Amino acid sequence: MPGKKVNLKDKFSRFSEHWSPRVVAELNDYQFKLVKIKGEFTWHDHQDTDEAFIVMKGSMSIEFRDGLVDLSEGEMYVVPKGVEHKPQAREECHVMLIEPRGVVNTGETGGELTAENDVWV
Amino acid sequence: MPGKKVNLKDKFSRFSEHWSPRVVAELNDYQFKLVKIKGEFTWHDHQDTDEAFIVMKGSMSIEFRDGLVDLSEGEMYVVPKGVEHKPQAREECHVMLIEPRGVVNTGETGGELTAENDVWV
Repeated sequence: MPGKKVNLKDKFSRFSEHWSPRVVAELNDYQFKLVKIKGEFTWHDHQDTDEAFIVMKGSMSIEFRDGLVDLSEGEMYVVPKGVEHKPQAREECHVMLIEPRGVVNTGETGGELTAENDVWV
Repeated sequence: MPGKKVNLKDKFSRFSEHWSPRVVAELNDYQFKLVKIKGEFTWHDHQDTDEAFIVMKGSMSIEFRDGLVDLSEGEMYVVPKGVEHKPQAREECHVMLIEPRGVVNTGETGGELTAENDVWV
């Protein structure tokens, strides 16, 4: 068969680190990444691309300079390119990210939360 | 806030037609579409792009010329560009599609199942 089936819950069960996105599929030059988040991430933006968040389990918030968006399971949000944002979650939350291959999780901000890129699970 | 939250269940509740994708969000030049499917679709391919399926509720199959893939809730599959496929579902199934803006549901095959493009919900 041309391709392979991806079971998202199974993929989430294969890693435990927070803020460390794992690639599960590619679509043209885009990647689907799964990430477990807890606590507060760093302020950052992505100058060249929008970034999609889909909450698969739990709840999270995305802080913007002009307010906060709360997202629950089954909700999604597309952060426009160049817009500073700070993801956060009180309890562990499972999220799918969709963005072009090569996007770094901390954008141009860097810092200790910067994850290795292009890690598959 | 830069963008808006999308509740996927709420969006699914707003239409009932089968095989008629509705756009719920855009990411750069890509679109997230929701579609309710039931029965057998037409054989088709997309010459210029891969196409991602994520099953949100129920189960479906994608038939390829060399076999069948069964997908349940929480599973995804990326159909590579140029590969003939025929989606199908015995009972109504709710699916998210991710593909570039402008992709026609029946590819170059056409026919009565061809849906109007770029319809938002």
